[in-house]
Amino acid sequence: MVFVLNPKVREEKIERFIHEWEQKGFSTILSVGTEHTADCLIGNTAAVDLDHVVQTNDIVAYGKRITEQYKAVNRTVHEDDTIVHVGNISIGEGFFTVISGPCSVESEEQILKIARSVKASGAKALRGGVFKPRSSPYAFQGKQAEGLEMLRMAKRETGLPIVSEIMNQTQIDLFEDVDIVQVGARNMQNFDLLKEVGKLKKPVLLKRGLANTIDELLMSAEYIVSAGNSQVILCERGIRTFETMTRNTFDLSAVVLLKQKTHLPVIADPSHASGIRSLVPPLAKAALAVGADGIMVETHNDPAQALSDGAQSLDLEQFSGLMDELRIRAAIEKKEM
Amino acid sequence: MVFVLNPKVREEKIERFIHEWEQKGFSTILSVGTEHTADCLIGNTAAVDLDHVVQTNDIVAYGKRITEQYKAVNRTVHEDDTIVHVGNISIGEGFFTVISGPCSVESEEQILKIARSVKASGAKALRGGVFKPRSSPYAFQGKQAEGLEMLRMAKRETGLPIVSEIMNQTQIDLFEDVDIVQVGARNMQNFDLLKEVGKLKKPVLLKRGLANTIDELLMSAEYIVSAGNSQVILCERGIRTFETMTRNTFDLSAVVLLKQKTHLPVIADPSHASGIRSLVPPLAKAALAVGADGIMVETHNDPAQALSDGAQSLDLEQFSGLMDELRIRAAIEKKEM
Amino acid sequence: MVFVLNPKVREEKIERFIHEWEQKGFSTILSVGTEHTADCLIGNTAAVDLDHVVQTNDIVAYGKRITEQYKAVNRTVHEDDTIVHVGNISIGEGFFTVISGPCSVESEEQILKIARSVKASGAKALRGGVFKPRSSPYAFQGKQAEGLEMLRMAKRETGLPIVSEIMNQTQIDLFEDVDIVQVGARNMQNFDLLKEVGKLKKPVLLKRGLANTIDELLMSAEYIVSAGNSQVILCERGIRTFETMTRNTFDLSAVVLLKQKTHLPVIADPSHASGIRSLVPPLAKAALAVGADGIMVETHNDPAQALSDGAQSLDLEQFSGLMDELRIRAAIEKKEM
Amino acid sequence: MVFVLNPKVREEKIERFIHEWEQKGFSTILSVGTEHTADCLIGNTAAVDLDHVVQTNDIVAYGKRITEQYKAVNRTVHEDDTIVHVGNISIGEGFFTVISGPCSVESEEQILKIARSVKASGAKALRGGVFKPRSSPYAFQGKQAEGLEMLRMAKRETGLPIVSEIMNQTQIDLFEDVDIVQVGARNMQNFDLLKEVGKLKKPVLLKRGLANTIDELLMSAEYIVSAGNSQVILCERGIRTFETMTRNTFDLSAVVLLKQKTHLPVIADPSHASGIRSLVPPLAKAALAVGADGIMVETHNDPAQALSDGAQSLDLEQFSGLMDELRIRAAIEKKEM
Repeated sequence: MVFVLNPKVREEKIERFIHEWEQKGFSTILSVGTEHTADCLIGNTAAVDLDHVVQTNDIVAYGKRITEQYKAVNRTVHEDDTIVHVGNISIGEGFFTVISGPCSVESEEQILKIARSVKASGAKALRGGVFKPRSSPYAFQGKQAEGLEMLRMAKRETGLPIVSEIMNQTQIDLFEDVDIVQVGARNMQNFDLLKEVGKLKKPVLLKRGLANTIDELLMSAEYIVSAGNSQVILCERGIRTFETMTRNTFDLSAVVLLKQKTHLPVIADPSHASGIRSLVPPLAKAALAVGADGIMVETHNDPAQALSDGAQSLDLEQFSGLMDELRIRAAIEKKEM
Repeated sequence: MVFVLNPKVREEKIERFIHEWEQKGFSTILSVGTEHTADCLIGNTAAVDLDHVVQTNDIVAYGKRITEQYKAVNRTVHEDDTIVHVGNISIGEGFFTVISGPCSVESEEQILKIARSVKASGAKALRGGVFKPRSSPYAFQGKQAEGLEMLRMAKRETGLPIVSEIMNQTQIDLFEDVDIVQVGARNMQNFDLLKEVGKLKKPVLLKRGLANTIDELLMSAEYIVSAGNSQVILCERGIRTFETMTRNTFDLSAVVLLKQKTHLPVIADPSHASGIRSLVPPLAKAALAVGADGIMVETHNDPAQALSDGAQSLDLEQFSGLMDELRIRAAIEKKEM
Repeated sequence: MVFVLNPKVREEKIERFIHEWEQKGFSTILSVGTEHTADCLIGNTAAVDLDHVVQTNDIVAYGKRITEQYKAVNRTVHEDDTIVHVGNISIGEGFFTVISGPCSVESEEQILKIARSVKASGAKALRGGVFKPRSSPYAFQGKQAEGLEMLRMAKRETGLPIVSEIMNQTQIDLFEDVDIVQVGARNMQNFDLLKEVGKLKKPVLLKRGLANTIDELLMSAEYIVSAGNSQVILCERGIRTFETMTRNTFDLSAVVLLKQKTHLPVIADPSHASGIRSLVPPLAKAALAVGADGIMVETHNDPAQALSDGAQSLDLEQFSGLMDELRIRAAIEKKEM
Repeated sequence: MVFVLNPKVREEKIERFIHEWEQKGFSTILSVGTEHTADCLIGNTAAVDLDHVVQTNDIVAYGKRITEQYKAVNRTVHEDDTIVHVGNISIGEGFFTVISGPCSVESEEQILKIARSVKASGAKALRGGVFKPRSSPYAFQGKQAEGLEMLRMAKRETGLPIVSEIMNQTQIDLFEDVDIVQVGARNMQNFDLLKEVGKLKKPVLLKRGLANTIDELLMSAEYIVSAGNSQVILCERGIRTFETMTRNTFDLSAVVLLKQKTHLPVIADPSHASGIRSLVPPLAKAALAVGADGIMVETHNDPAQALSDGAQSLDLEQFSGLMDELRIRAAIEKKEM
């Protein structure tokens, strides 16, 4: 950890600052420049609150962490790839796992039709939203508990593990039969929810927030893993930028960087990242090309009648075609699909 | 509501589209252009889910809402300014209400010292965080319930109403004695929490999210008001942009626009918007100059020792000086302080 | 073109507005809603300055263009793909053309070594900067005219067409022997420069600006094409967002959308988009996967000694390895490499 | 300058790195941490190209400048405020100088009418665009040289110094009679233009680019000042963000920070920052409140007929009213208007 001190600070203040750190068991090295002075802190700084130090010491202009603050999810600490297992499917390095299903569960008939079809096409898990975060109180809010029952039924019929989004910690009991609990983009920094899903004994799919950095995503994963649940799957789903032609801006560099920085599996969601059906297949192939461990793709048996996100859903035939294209490419990337 | 149709759509598809709307009681006007065709929908479109229509009709290229989707918070529907009353203080048009206090409640002594001082300087309410949303699980998470007890004590001693942030709906009972319940930036689209605070009979201070538009802030306020609680105070606190020299980018245009578009009170938070102590006083004056109904300013008896956000906290003397400066300017803006 | 009028506008004002348009040869259709009124304008609206109309008519709240403003570059106007030919190389649909070379030309020896190597690896054109836009006046500004001479020499020796960035229109004569004139991201809206390169009879490589939308990129291309030069190659190279871990955020959705909206070739620059060497190969493969017509990749014989952008440059062996990987994938995408 | 080295770097590589710096006359201090190692460089590092060092040394993970790279414009180097004098007007600390006029010069009559009126209202200089950067080639491009003649005439008639935007360096001779040469937002990093205006003996008004940081604005000013022209006025005019309700996001924190970091005058442009007439007066007052040295405000004798930017132009009466409001507030801020 390096602290850059303000210019013209009195020497005794610097000495006191150094002394405080040494009292806490750190060693420090002071570098006196022509205009500024820097103080390098040596020791286990993971538990040091950098912002707090900067903010509470008038002599410090700013600080920079040399070692990342996340430990449990850090690849330098834990080199081997984490592979998340759900039933007989695997998510992580060496696999390209496709999760598919509708944005919203709408009816037994709908979810069953979709589940059977995406399974036949090669999807390994079924997604379906039942609690829907919608910006308008007047928009369709999802089928709620009734929708979960429909998902369970689809799971029984097809054997596909199910993925669904939790919106707050009071719902945790309802998710007992859900195989992968999704924490959505808007909840990426709902820290109380993170702590709660950290107590679960099942995989958590953590989506990157619209305005969150890669570092913040890793820190949110650290909340879950440090609470005891190491089965976390990260998901890049687009960030908010000035470009309005797409719903979000798909940040595929983040997938590569996340795979470098953490041992956790990293998947991508080209449907939410673009919001446009015709962009989903090329972006799905791109996610595979950069090394993602899988994708989550929205599909619908009748996109024109979908209750939400129809514009970005593939129909079942389009999805089947995409899977054929992905299989050829996964072989080249040496990924099991 | 205007829908622009895709080029070269078959006429019968357009006719079916129009027919469906007329069945639902809307009237429509079709405008045929040289390349595209537009369909204007007339009637009460507030309950129409624009995205859904666009997404589920292949013939529609995009749609544009002519009337805003928010009703309860819309100034065109409800022209008179809403004034929120808490005890004997008022927040809204004609007032410039200053809320102050520490980022985190740390001890009885600390909160009491600050409360007495900011009251003497003219603050009308006391803020103090007890449940702290922190990006790192290893950072100080707040004094929790114990901190609420300290706030209550400070309220008893000074008579100042108290403001504190709620992090999830399971905490609602704990907030019984909190006068203004704050929903923080990271929870602006925690829709389940919005519905819950919409059932309260006390004011809610709703902060704009880091990556949320003015329209989305108004829709989140609509969640609360449409659930039955019309005492909502909006707060601009900076958005996330590419500029890294400040913690966030303070969007004062949003304050002016919000005051135009809604009857709800609008305040600003120059402390979080900048993250830098020396910027707080000028930005506070700017908030007053653009017409904000108040500000929320972080203060601390000893910023250098604060457990969080010390770098942006004014000390008690600086706050007192700022209040003197604001009083002169509030008189000119004809705002009661 | 649809104009949404302000609420409560006097009828005679609307009539005057409509009359003015009809005088200019447009037909209009008025749609009266419960709160707002919309006016649809029919006719050739490409030459209508939308902003101007909105801004100069107090009765207009906002306007929306139904037909895009770009004509010459619009795929709906000109359906067939434009293939840009330079010597015996082709850039456009059906090809995956790789342009490579150093960020900066540094010496005869350097450029020659790189040129020979990238040619052997399969690059079709040689890039090399000689006029360098640097944010600091104290940073290396490029080899200038002397560098152009080195590029010419490398072209003579290897037969590779050369690509270099022009910084202002006074340099046009210097670029006589440059095969593809690059307009950099910072100059994407240097409209006078666009007009000048629009007079050239050689291809222009137009890079997207850091803060420019897809629509603005197309409008800048329209400047060049409407000035008479239809050989324009668009290049996505990352946009500026809040994420700081990468130099820019690579927007691969833009590549897909540009290919849909225009007939011009679209390539991508994974080097500038990421700024990080280890990200270049995966992002290059992703660009191929989404349908880009080629890439521009920075290479250097000795990245550790490069005078600029060494951190994002591949060394010659890495480049050769990447080309092998791309060739396998180009075959699958049915692109000639 | 601090360099953080990659983990597990071989010692001899570090020694060679240190040795190279010492050869160049710097002293270094090495700090060995538990996981990383940092190297602090001491000496005059202004001329060191930080990016280059990071990029060309495989052992360096990243670097951080302790001393800012800008020298000539840096307040730590040059403490006293620079006051720019044009005729008998002054721009800088202690003054609040209002520059006003139309977005575009349209006719002799128009510019004269506006000039006389804004002068009577208290404006100290007249702005008027004659070369207009427009995103569409089909939009009005300005009156060009003819417009400059109209501006000269208005100057002769009113005595107001004139401000106009230069678009490229070939126009420099045309600007002989222009008192303040404006470099627009899109040209903030047109480095060749910056070098050219750096040779002028008259003030340059440098606007912040849409996607440029405060540091980059200062570096662009450094280009001008280091080329010999120290009469540079900086102008905050809004940055591009995800918020679309305003044309740009007005960053008033930047004004405060710029005043702290540089001795140059800093003004603000609330017209372009918002793009909405009703926002201009409150934002103008906010600019004064945060300590700006002046503002540039668009006015028009007949906004409804303006050829560009009418929606953000005040009419002459509104401007006069705003000036009255500003005068009262300038007195409080102890600024001469």
